[in-house]
Amino acid sequence: MNAMRHAISLFSLGSFQLGRRMRSQHLRGFLLGTGLGLCSFATVTYAQAEAAKVNRRLNVSKFMAEPITEATVLLEDKENMRHRMELMIMEIQAEFCRALESEEFNGQKFKVDRWMRKEGGGGVTCVLQDGDVFEKAGVNVSVVTGSLPPAAVQQMRARGKALTENVKLPFFASGVSAVIHPRNPHVPTIHFNYRYFEVELPDGEKQWWFGGGTDLTPYYLDETDARHFHKTLKSACDEHDATYYPRFKKWCDDYFHIKHRNESRGIGGIFFDDIDVPTQDSAFNFITSCARAVIPSYMPLVQKHKNDAYGNNERQWQLLRRGRYVEFNLIYDRGTKFGLYTPGARYESILMSLPLNARWEYMHEPQPKSKESALLTVLRNPKEWI
Amino acid sequence: MNAMRHAISLFSLGSFQLGRRMRSQHLRGFLLGTGLGLCSFATVTYAQAEAAKVNRRLNVSKFMAEPITEATVLLEDKENMRHRMELMIMEIQAEFCRALESEEFNGQKFKVDRWMRKEGGGGVTCVLQDGDVFEKAGVNVSVVTGSLPPAAVQQMRARGKALTENVKLPFFASGVSAVIHPRNPHVPTIHFNYRYFEVELPDGEKQWWFGGGTDLTPYYLDETDARHFHKTLKSACDEHDATYYPRFKKWCDDYFHIKHRNESRGIGGIFFDDIDVPTQDSAFNFITSCARAVIPSYMPLVQKHKNDAYGNNERQWQLLRRGRYVEFNLIYDRGTKFGLYTPGARYESILMSLPLNARWEYMHEPQPKSKESALLTVLRNPKEWI
Repeated sequence: MNAMRHAISLFSLGSFQLGRRMRSQHLRGFLLGTGLGLCSFATVTYAQAEAAKVNRRLNVSKFMAEPITEATVLLEDKENMRHRMELMIMEIQAEFCRALESEEFNGQKFKVDRWMRKEGGGGVTCVLQDGDVFEKAGVNVSVVTGSLPPAAVQQMRARGKALTENVKLPFFASGVSAVIHPRNPHVPTIHFNYRYFEVELPDGEKQWWFGGGTDLTPYYLDETDARHFHKTLKSACDEHDATYYPRFKKWCDDYFHIKHRNESRGIGGIFFDDIDVPTQDSAFNFITSCARAVIPSYMPLVQKHKNDAYGNNERQWQLLRRGRYVEFNLIYDRGTKFGLYTPGARYESILMSLPLNARWEYMHEPQPKSKESALLTVLRNPKEWI
Repeated sequence: MNAMRHAISLFSLGSFQLGRRMRSQHLRGFLLGTGLGLCSFATVTYAQAEAAKVNRRLNVSKFMAEPITEATVLLEDKENMRHRMELMIMEIQAEFCRALESEEFNGQKFKVDRWMRKEGGGGVTCVLQDGDVFEKAGVNVSVVTGSLPPAAVQQMRARGKALTENVKLPFFASGVSAVIHPRNPHVPTIHFNYRYFEVELPDGEKQWWFGGGTDLTPYYLDETDARHFHKTLKSACDEHDATYYPRFKKWCDDYFHIKHRNESRGIGGIFFDDIDVPTQDSAFNFITSCARAVIPSYMPLVQKHKNDAYGNNERQWQLLRRGRYVEFNLIYDRGTKFGLYTPGARYESILMSLPLNARWEYMHEPQPKSKESALLTVLRNPKEWI
């Protein structure tokens, strides 16, 4: 096992260094832009120097990679919601990745893949695999355009509006999503996703909406943690609308439900779709608040539990629960299905949500009155945490 | 790990003993029927003694458990296709389970669960978990009746015939299915399924059809094995119709295709649905031949490779391929979807097909010219083996 772990570490490190190299090229761009070391790079053109200035104005260096849209375009039209969204999700991605990296014991870093999609747009996929603290952590940003059959567009919305059949509709979608599978079974898995859609109807009308959510999947129930997590999300919601948290908490419980087992994937959080009120500005501010609440809702739990003792029993239980996670994601999750059925989809970015290891035992049932059974009770009867 | 393996062995053993107990009750039934030990069982009624005689005439003791349909009913109407099918699949299940058990090093046995479904019918699920040779082996028989919406019935057939909407249709379905995940990465995984359906249309017309297939999922390619496997299936097909093997081999390649990865689950075999020609008798004989071909197609490969040397690299590759197996089964497999969406389905019997352990690595790609890469080449370009 150690040989393999080592081999994987080398693989991850190799890839990470590629990522670093990519980022260091951006960095070199900044240095060039500030005039440092210009003498040693005779091939720098005026255009490159100008682009570097633009990047500096956007402070791109704090991102995991360059944004998908050209920096000049992002800067020129700063009020455009597509651009505001792109900058926000790039920022959320970078802040979350840095926060996770800072918890690792041996300086493990995210591997960064910036990819473009021939149908339009692209993304930045960051994965930290086989870390000491995070067994598999994926944080993905995508900004894509294309055209979709109305059926697919309707699938994108929880409650579809009537759309004309047999015409392909131009759409724009951007979002940040993450799934973090820690190694220690006492640290819960977190998932979040914040997204913005635009679709143009055949009559020229543009529809737009936001969606998203954050939810927690513990392997062992710590009620204090559960309350902290839900409280943090509630505060983010309450800033905008007092009805949001109760509605979106219930929506989350309903959505992350493994129907065939009649149990929840985890202890919920918030989940919503089709937010297009009261204004585009306020809806954007709302999902920004939610996205900003991820770190304070989750990182304290990592810090609290990452050194907890555990043995093989806890590990095996964690692997079984990860099997359930796989079941939910591959059978029910709309995002995964929508992603995998979209032509030209980057499946590695979609399936980064799957755990490094998972397990299925026939007819497994935890011992009565065990800690494992206490978790199951809550998964079978979602409760109010606040 | 050993502690856990030990714990699981105990668990399996405990459950197995329950299974044995259940079977020994049947056995006791026979003993009673033959008059042995009657004196010590004062509560045996005339009816019980008669039932035991019937069981003996059916030779039920060779099955893993009592059939779902009462033995007297099976005996009374032996020409009824439902009954012929039930007896055939009970026999196939038992022969295959015994063949697998006989390969185990330490006498591991199948755990036997006989279950009834409140909507009608039931099944016998046999699982051998955490054996030395078989990491997880599931062999399931089900004989169920109920009523289904036409959409579900249409989903059951590869090419649906026009069915009236908005009426529930009475149906009967029976079949045997198995997925065997060996421990040694040089022993391939096998899957097979042979099934018979009846559905009654609103005008009283009865439709019936057979379906099935056997396919192989190696972790390392052994071309001699692949040829042996396909040849054995081809012989079974050729007895009935020379066009079957080429048609059903292609159908198999098309069906077991992981679309998002553009690769096959394994090296195929045969797959077919909607067989209702030339006569019910000959169609039944055909699927019986196919089911009988499972043992000679597969057991020689188990015997040949179960003692092959392997290390952690081979194990990790096997786990990654098992991740792909999970992807196919949960995202694409019609049987799994149909099963999980059927109200009252026994999900443990459906999900017994999932491996004990599976793994997902971000962006994994085998070394060029490695044995792993040789397998991928064949999975990406299905070939003719005969």
